Amino acid sequence: MARIVMKFGGTSMAGTERIRRVAQIVRRQAMNGNEVAVIVSAMAGETDRLVNFCREANALYDPAEYDVVVASGEQVTSGLLALTLQSVGCKARSWLGWQLPVRTIESHAKARIDDIDGDALIAAMRAGEIAVIPGFQGVSDDNRITTLGRGGSDTSAVAVAAAIGADRCDIYTDVDGVYTTDPRIVARARKLKAVTYEEMLELASVGAKVLQTRSVGLAMKEGVRVQVLSSFVDDDATPADEYPGTMIVSEEEMNELVEKGEMERQHVTGIAHDKNEAKIILTRVPDKPGAVAHIFDPLAKAAINVDMIIQNVGRDKGETDVTFTVPMADLARAQALLEDKRSEIGFNRIITDSHIAKISVVGVGMKSHAGVAATMFRSLADRGINIQAITTSEIKVSVMIDEDETELAVRVLHTAYGLDAMDEPAA
Amino acid sequence: MARIVMKFGGTSMAGTERIRRVAQIVRRQAMNGNEVAVIVSAMAGETDRLVNFCREANALYDPAEYDVVVASGEQVTSGLLALTLQSVGCKARSWLGWQLPVRTIESHAKARIDDIDGDALIAAMRAGEIAVIPGFQGVSDDNRITTLGRGGSDTSAVAVAAAIGADRCDIYTDVDGVYTTDPRIVARARKLKAVTYEEMLELASVGAKVLQTRSVGLAMKEGVRVQVLSSFVDDDATPADEYPGTMIVSEEEMNELVEKGEMERQHVTGIAHDKNEAKIILTRVPDKPGAVAHIFDPLAKAAINVDMIIQNVGRDKGETDVTFTVPMADLARAQALLEDKRSEIGFNRIITDSHIAKISVVGVGMKSHAGVAATMFRSLADRGINIQAITTSEIKVSVMIDEDETELAVRVLHTAYGLDAMDEPAA
Repeated sequence: MARIVMKFGGTSMAGTERIRRVAQIVRRQAMNGNEVAVIVSAMAGETDRLVNFCREANALYDPAEYDVVVASGEQVTSGLLALTLQSVGCKARSWLGWQLPVRTIESHAKARIDDIDGDALIAAMRAGEIAVIPGFQGVSDDNRITTLGRGGSDTSAVAVAAAIGADRCDIYTDVDGVYTTDPRIVARARKLKAVTYEEMLELASVGAKVLQTRSVGLAMKEGVRVQVLSSFVDDDATPADEYPGTMIVSEEEMNELVEKGEMERQHVTGIAHDKNEAKIILTRVPDKPGAVAHIFDPLAKAAINVDMIIQNVGRDKGETDVTFTVPMADLARAQALLEDKRSEIGFNRIITDSHIAKISVVGVGMKSHAGVAATMFRSLADRGINIQAITTSEIKVSVMIDEDETELAVRVLHTAYGLDAMDEPAA
Repeated sequence: MARIVMKFGGTSMAGTERIRRVAQIVRRQAMNGNEVAVIVSAMAGETDRLVNFCREANALYDPAEYDVVVASGEQVTSGLLALTLQSVGCKARSWLGWQLPVRTIESHAKARIDDIDGDALIAAMRAGEIAVIPGFQGVSDDNRITTLGRGGSDTSAVAVAAAIGADRCDIYTDVDGVYTTDPRIVARARKLKAVTYEEMLELASVGAKVLQTRSVGLAMKEGVRVQVLSSFVDDDATPADEYPGTMIVSEEEMNELVEKGEMERQHVTGIAHDKNEAKIILTRVPDKPGAVAHIFDPLAKAAINVDMIIQNVGRDKGETDVTFTVPMADLARAQALLEDKRSEIGFNRIITDSHIAKISVVGVGMKSHAGVAATMFRSLADRGINIQAITTSEIKVSVMIDEDETELAVRVLHTAYGLDAMDEPAA
């Protein structure tokens, strides 16, 4: 018997037919003797509909009232899933954010969970009742509804799992796990049995959008074991494996899995790509102390995330070219901001290029293994792929390349690190 | 300066364009220096959509979870109206049922308001903030969402008005007041400036469905002055009259209006008709003590409302025919129930007839004026309309007639009691 949190996204909750399918998946876990809490998203499309209403009502909407409106989407699905579970013979009830309560801090529409009172929940689950909890919502100190920002239901699930000391938190989504790379690019991509929190954070932040980044950070902090798996498997096929998806675990647990022979030790766990960055080059910036701060301070104040930074020696002495990347969505705003500060920074030209991609190789294994970066550079060079910039962290090496070469680069690296799946043996 | 509660129904709240219109009407009251609380229904059609989801999820739905789902409709419109009021320059916030709180008793899906804490509301309104409150919803003792049953928002409005001691409660609907009779039948029907609670109760219960009956009863009990008026008047035309609709007031206030010459004293205030009743005749029921109880006890237990009852002497001694009416919607159920009890009751045949109508003349004036009933019977007889049954109360006389003669009867009585409007004088 285990205590399990299960989370279902908007696609899984889109309509009463799909909710019935979800109820069957939940019921199976309860029938196996587990204590179960379920976190649900709004029906796919519903949050967009509600956000649009708010925009129509008031372009500069009050986030407190916005929260009242948009939180209703998850309220509806939590009630409907409780009803559906009852119809398949389970005891179930919904627990809204203000009922548990899920206490949040900071501002409306982007609140952060501060504390969840798990006592009532644990008592109900012990009594054999499935708890259904709307994701994305909480309640502020002054008793008003708050929401966590888009995609916040993953974070709700991990926070509830932490509050009730769950054995694991299963995140059901429309993919069946975390892969070594995007299977649409590399047919031989393999589903990973497990990744560490750190690897998942790097993979999520560079474009493998399976889980909301914040939820992975919280899981790491709270030590919640998270599993990513698909809700679109055959209803009747009870997976033989307890963990049919990808487990996201601590480095210690990963080491145990390797020692037990359940996981193979790899230097590189996965290859991620991200086409949502744009490059900005400022030419002929004065090469003197403090010059770079004039560039990046205003961007930081405007909450524009700068990722890669390269400083080249310019053609003329005392001058330098500064290249960096920002999210594509912030490019126009960054450009306007820099033009504003032209005299202060003292650059000559702004050159922008949104036709770039960032390719990252990620793996905790590279902590103890030199040569991962060298393999990357050599493999790309062998195929004539030009590297425009490089950044590294303890468990990641990223390079900036031309966007057109994204797929080629991912395939080349997937093979180079030995990640390609073997062919299935003939039956 | 007055303290005013305003209530808007689903048609008035159907979409952000209409909500903008509502916001303008509310703003005008606030700009006149009034303290304003607004009660809103869900968008027209939304409650039906949510109820359907519940039915699809679980045909025998748990009313506690049903309430979680359907209460979301009013939550959305309360947030949207607050946002829209802010966009037209008003201070406004939403107060959900559990936030005020609106404490309810009895069962989910048909809860009754027990107590509303008006303190926070009054403080906010005094500070110039418009309070927007979702109708139809409350919270139970164990902190779960409850709903009041369909049409409950009128009752919410009156209950809030009572809790904050409002000077009046304006119910905005799709008609512009209460008429002497249905204007679709009698072109010369007049809008009434005022009616008493008792009259409104009788008019509402016999088919003039302007207000939910329960809300009128509550207004009478709490002494809340209610006004019925239309939200579909020209935005720019600020009515010169403070009371452009129909005021529903106590008999005392009505007497004052008459003394001041603002209202004319009428014996009959209005004529109502109701085609939603059906007639049941049980023939040859034993004419002995307790026989009638055998008929009506099971119907009462099944919550079937019996209205008119007539007992005729039968052809044979010791037997009688019993005729009564039930709501059309309950006819089949009543019939099955009576067939079940045939041996106990001991009747010969069940004859049913849904082709009947009930016509009622209503007026507090008839308390002090004999001859109202006689006028009714004579006028109908003069036109050859046969009366099948009669019931009376202190302020009402009702007759059962053939459904085909409904319109003729209403017109004849409207004229007979002097209710026809004079022709407008040429300008």
